[in-house]
Amino acid sequence: MTRLTRRYKFSASHRLHSAAMSDEENSELYGKCNNPFGHGHNYVLEVTVRGPVNAESGRVVGIGKLDAYVEREVIRHFDHKDMNRDVPDFVDLVPTTENLSVIVEKRLRRDWSSSFGTASLDAVRVQETKRNLFELRDL
Amino acid sequence: MTRLTRRYKFSASHRLHSAAMSDEENSELYGKCNNPFGHGHNYVLEVTVRGPVNAESGRVVGIGKLDAYVEREVIRHFDHKDMNRDVPDFVDLVPTTENLSVIVEKRLRRDWSSSFGTASLDAVRVQETKRNLFELRDL
Amino acid sequence: MTRLTRRYKFSASHRLHSAAMSDEENSELYGKCNNPFGHGHNYVLEVTVRGPVNAESGRVVGIGKLDAYVEREVIRHFDHKDMNRDVPDFVDLVPTTENLSVIVEKRLRRDWSSSFGTASLDAVRVQETKRNLFELRDL
Amino acid sequence: MTRLTRRYKFSASHRLHSAAMSDEENSELYGKCNNPFGHGHNYVLEVTVRGPVNAESGRVVGIGKLDAYVEREVIRHFDHKDMNRDVPDFVDLVPTTENLSVIVEKRLRRDWSSSFGTASLDAVRVQETKRNLFELRDL
Amino acid sequence: MTRLTRRYKFSASHRLHSAAMSDEENSELYGKCNNPFGHGHNYVLEVTVRGPVNAESGRVVGIGKLDAYVEREVIRHFDHKDMNRDVPDFVDLVPTTENLSVIVEKRLRRDWSSSFGTASLDAVRVQETKRNLFELRDL
Amino acid sequence: MTRLTRRYKFSASHRLHSAAMSDEENSELYGKCNNPFGHGHNYVLEVTVRGPVNAESGRVVGIGKLDAYVEREVIRHFDHKDMNRDVPDFVDLVPTTENLSVIVEKRLRRDWSSSFGTASLDAVRVQETKRNLFELRDL
Repeated sequence: MTRLTRRYKFSASHRLHSAAMSDEENSELYGKCNNPFGHGHNYVLEVTVRGPVNAESGRVVGIGKLDAYVEREVIRHFDHKDMNRDVPDFVDLVPTTENLSVIVEKRLRRDWSSSFGTASLDAVRVQETKRNLFELRDL
Repeated sequence: MTRLTRRYKFSASHRLHSAAMSDEENSELYGKCNNPFGHGHNYVLEVTVRGPVNAESGRVVGIGKLDAYVEREVIRHFDHKDMNRDVPDFVDLVPTTENLSVIVEKRLRRDWSSSFGTASLDAVRVQETKRNLFELRDL
Repeated sequence: MTRLTRRYKFSASHRLHSAAMSDEENSELYGKCNNPFGHGHNYVLEVTVRGPVNAESGRVVGIGKLDAYVEREVIRHFDHKDMNRDVPDFVDLVPTTENLSVIVEKRLRRDWSSSFGTASLDAVRVQETKRNLFELRDL
Repeated sequence: MTRLTRRYKFSASHRLHSAAMSDEENSELYGKCNNPFGHGHNYVLEVTVRGPVNAESGRVVGIGKLDAYVEREVIRHFDHKDMNRDVPDFVDLVPTTENLSVIVEKRLRRDWSSSFGTASLDAVRVQETKRNLFELRDL
Repeated sequence: MTRLTRRYKFSASHRLHSAAMSDEENSELYGKCNNPFGHGHNYVLEVTVRGPVNAESGRVVGIGKLDAYVEREVIRHFDHKDMNRDVPDFVDLVPTTENLSVIVEKRLRRDWSSSFGTASLDAVRVQETKRNLFELRDL
Repeated sequence: MTRLTRRYKFSASHRLHSAAMSDEENSELYGKCNNPFGHGHNYVLEVTVRGPVNAESGRVVGIGKLDAYVEREVIRHFDHKDMNRDVPDFVDLVPTTENLSVIVEKRLRRDWSSSFGTASLDAVRVQETKRNLFELRDL
């Protein structure tokens, strides 16, 4: 069993504001991220796949196939978008990077097993800035 | 004469759309950056100061003084902001990173000489992503 | 359950010399790090927190709260310090980065549960240079 | 127990082509990596060692000893080499980075326990480019 | 006048061997890079364009147009190639990164002025590894 | 004419304190860098050489020769050292990175022309942290 991690990038904007809290609470919790007009980041997405190495091909999964899948399920929906207004998943959900990583993982799981067979989705990591990294991991 | 380069970061969003062009022209020129709701980046700003090394202090400029100046003139106006709506310089100007670097340099020049005397502002660089860097340089 | 990793930096100096070994043994084991007057590094500290995402706030922990805690318990005691002479933990302990990561984790655990409730301290990593990384992890 | 990760670099070339597949299949699976004359990468190898911190030395393993071992078992055989023609392990094995990480781990395990006693080889990671990382991990 | 720097990547292999020198001289001058079967690198190419910012578009050049030009003139000829055998420019020229940067600049200059008008090609930089950078600059 | 930049690393400690100023002035100017016992950094040194590409060898200078020169003139005197106490150049000079870059350049110039002939020393850059870069450049 080996793990392959593949790295993708996208740029997006968001505003952190929870309807369940008062303006003061929002401002205290989210700080500058609560600014009314939003701001943005260069996100880095890492997808880790775990599985046996195929004896003929020497691969865990085909890289081209993985790239096409991640592009179709995730990147095209987030890249150069305003997450609050362009991504339906965030209609009722604050687009913190915690929630973003949950949403990205859910989207990647949808057709995973029919696409990649025995190779499992092992971890999803989303880096918001060099200081903030969020990870969902199978264990 | 030596050059000191100091690096700052800010996160902001923008939308590229020029009122002087048709929708088709905007879409062709700016591609995904023309998306109606905007998107964002982690910007890196590098400020280069050129001057003699002070014999007593061993410094070209005081780092703390430079940081306070850049924070006051630039960072606080751009960090965690939507440039199209939060920054008045972009009311009639498309917030491309070319224009952003011109605006940043203009803001830094305003009180430069009264603040830093013989040390000159040598170059301003703004990195939008790891693939895009814009520079204004004195020569 | 998700994991949030937050990255901090500090610069410090140290000298590696064990009172339990001869000068020759020290020199052989620690090499240039045994130099009598010490040397220094830009350390990178990564703190990983594991917990459920709060449904209202979309956060595992408040970032501002975490930053203040790490600053108070660790950074202010190590940043711009000589670990052998400024940090009491190293009076009888060689400040290798292995020991530094043990000490940092111990300091972070002290008031962790009273400060962060159900969110657990999952991993502590200290990077000494780009070639050397030390990790303490819960599993 | 702590984990020490040490990072090494080597530059090598390879061509991905499997004798078990037709030319069309090779071209479809490996894409540009199937180019007849090969191409190359700057590889990064990370070796993670897990063990108790020695009370006298403050180390998990001697860094100099680890470096000499990795150099002798791995680096000198791969650095500035063409893996298809210079490395005997790849006579019948496609030098994908999956297989490369399996081979590197096998070579590191060979004399590990006689060299490092209670400190175990915890993980081996090979990065081919900033977008591709392969890991073998003990758990 | 501003400068835009755009960054591209390609992976290629090469062998350094000069027909004008003896085997001993080749080995002494090029070291491991003289290995008979070659080795490879992840190259980074930076292209710097200098010009006025267009008042309407806010751009020095169209990014999409620049990318297509660099892809057509350079990247497709070098990416995933063996420079000694796949790139005709190196039939009689040792593919050192000095020569590579000269060749890349020559290829970029060919149709530059008919493609980009008043925006000039200001600098070409090729990074072979993090330790080696080569630059051709107009001044 | 092309420019070759080669990158070196060293780790060292220093304390910023000027005998020409009062304790208060020292503390205000140097901030935490004035801490009595010093602190340290992982420094990055970049050396840029400018010259014609030799037609036979395809090189500006021999890389091995340059490395040996920089090691002998600079690295061995600074790596794993306390600059205030181990490096005689700083007996009467505050080891700011401005002064460090001046000293490094002076040391590199000493035997430069007898060692490298027509290839000139074009620039010396010293990076103290990712936020601070100092450069001496010929122009």
